Amino acid sequence: MIQGQTWIFSNRPSIAASSAIGGPFEAQGPLADDFDLLHGDIWLGQDSFEKAEKKLLEQACERAIDKAGMKKEDIQFFLAGDLMNQVISSSFTARTLAVPYLGIFGACSSSMEGLALGALLVDSGNADRVLAATASHNAAAEKQYRYPTEYGSQKPPTAQWTVTGAGAAVISSEKSGIYVSSATIGRVVDMGIQDPFNMGSAMAPAAVDTIEAHFRDLHISVSEYDLILTGDLGRIGHQIAADLLDKHGLKLPEDRFGDCGMMIYREDQPVQAGASGCASSACVTYGHVLNRMKRGELRKVLIVATGALLSPISYQQKESIPCIAHAVVIESEGGKGGS
Amino acid sequence: MIQGQTWIFSNRPSIAASSAIGGPFEAQGPLADDFDLLHGDIWLGQDSFEKAEKKLLEQACERAIDKAGMKKEDIQFFLAGDLMNQVISSSFTARTLAVPYLGIFGACSSSMEGLALGALLVDSGNADRVLAATASHNAAAEKQYRYPTEYGSQKPPTAQWTVTGAGAAVISSEKSGIYVSSATIGRVVDMGIQDPFNMGSAMAPAAVDTIEAHFRDLHISVSEYDLILTGDLGRIGHQIAADLLDKHGLKLPEDRFGDCGMMIYREDQPVQAGASGCASSACVTYGHVLNRMKRGELRKVLIVATGALLSPISYQQKESIPCIAHAVVIESEGGKGGS
Repeated sequence: MIQGQTWIFSNRPSIAASSAIGGPFEAQGPLADDFDLLHGDIWLGQDSFEKAEKKLLEQACERAIDKAGMKKEDIQFFLAGDLMNQVISSSFTARTLAVPYLGIFGACSSSMEGLALGALLVDSGNADRVLAATASHNAAAEKQYRYPTEYGSQKPPTAQWTVTGAGAAVISSEKSGIYVSSATIGRVVDMGIQDPFNMGSAMAPAAVDTIEAHFRDLHISVSEYDLILTGDLGRIGHQIAADLLDKHGLKLPEDRFGDCGMMIYREDQPVQAGASGCASSACVTYGHVLNRMKRGELRKVLIVATGALLSPISYQQKESIPCIAHAVVIESEGGKGGS
Repeated sequence: MIQGQTWIFSNRPSIAASSAIGGPFEAQGPLADDFDLLHGDIWLGQDSFEKAEKKLLEQACERAIDKAGMKKEDIQFFLAGDLMNQVISSSFTARTLAVPYLGIFGACSSSMEGLALGALLVDSGNADRVLAATASHNAAAEKQYRYPTEYGSQKPPTAQWTVTGAGAAVISSEKSGIYVSSATIGRVVDMGIQDPFNMGSAMAPAAVDTIEAHFRDLHISVSEYDLILTGDLGRIGHQIAADLLDKHGLKLPEDRFGDCGMMIYREDQPVQAGASGCASSACVTYGHVLNRMKRGELRKVLIVATGALLSPISYQQKESIPCIAHAVVIESEGGKGGS
């Protein structure tokens, strides 16, 4: 069912299991315990950072499928996207999985684009078991979007640190206690910011646009949610989003409105304004948040994954940064959890 | 409803209107009359080929929406993908449209990935009006994947020519006489081919895999279809696909099995093995094929869009080419057509 730009899922498409994989820098962060696997080596034994990113994604998929008590042949559709040119991490993982594959692209909003579409497939009876996943790798992203890390180029305090990690979720028609109840698909919002070292500020208005649409479409109040998390706005973007929402009359309580990009690293880790990358919202949601839901600490959360839809070419051609945000509601049946 | 890897749409999600835009090289081809607009200048008045590609996509969207008698505000979801890094043509067009946007990536299979997902959204009641579109630009693709055209580098006879064009379709819950009845989502197939100048051969096994899955899932015979078209296998890939299908006991009659990549250009145009690019299957389907259906010449067609999921980086890192194909069935109610 649709209301405005929000899909409402009445058949409770459930999260059978999920996984989060991280790298050495994520292992030093406050959410380390919520990862299923943390690598000490950013190369993961591969000979390129791109192959390491693919490995992260493959491991996240494998782990989620395993935790769901399934085999890869049980998965009917694989939905994935990433930041690499031509989303090669996802496509090569799809080759490994060898199941029907739908490639998606929403930059760092890919996590919730995949979860929203996966939930829709299950809710509508067009699938019983879908795998949604995404990944990012700090050194691969730096190389592709900015400068190879080895150059040691400096960054302004508004810059963000791409998470080395991957997250995956198995969405199933079989009830698990944790389910996706609705999803709001975002529009592209572009306020004219051209600085790729200030993506949080660029993405904040897109997050606000989707959050407002969500509450407008569903006629609910913010008190409905135990937690509302944006994907990777970082400290600066988060403040802008909070201010904008406030200005538009939608005050989100400080203790229940956060940002995945502000949660993965400690304050004293040198990540400037916070975390970013597809794995930011994926790891926090599929690790930390779902763990809290399973422990009964959270009953209903809204994850608003944000994406900056630029490319190095669009930047070089003096284009501004089109941004988007997709929001997904995850609910738990009275604190009982999935596996 | 799902059977195997095939979605069956029982509510007849309809194609309200479609469009095809092309460039000067396409204007010289045998399907010129089926384009809504043909540009004499590959720059389309823009200062980069990437911007020209975006312009093609914007025009295809505008034209399809207009032909459907709608305004852009009537579109609830925009599904699009292209070959550019970070699918910028699609994302920037989504900025222009300012409607909820789901970015997809299936390389040249994006046309049917978008149509399949769009039909599913409408069929399941999660949308009433969806726009699915894709584009490619010869000079932008040459620059990104190979060498800028200006270098004049030579190509082997197995190479294909990227179509400069765009295609779009408005999928609606309102009946138009032409509808999408099912879609088979493909798996990634990789037979180890590493040569990006021989993509037709690389993609042929993926097309075969999806075609076989389609007939297996639906328990129908090939005589069901007036026409079966692959996306952009070209002459060499088409022959391989025909031979493989034959070998597997699925003989497709020669007069009803073709390839979009062999239809767009004349035999004497210097395109080597044929056409490729996202616009290959999009322009042929959304222009030529739908026009024939509206004239009552075809009642039921199967479009099998093929995609090579490589990137220049995966190629440089000595990876082979993962390929995919998505198949969509378009039917006409006794030859009556949409607008």
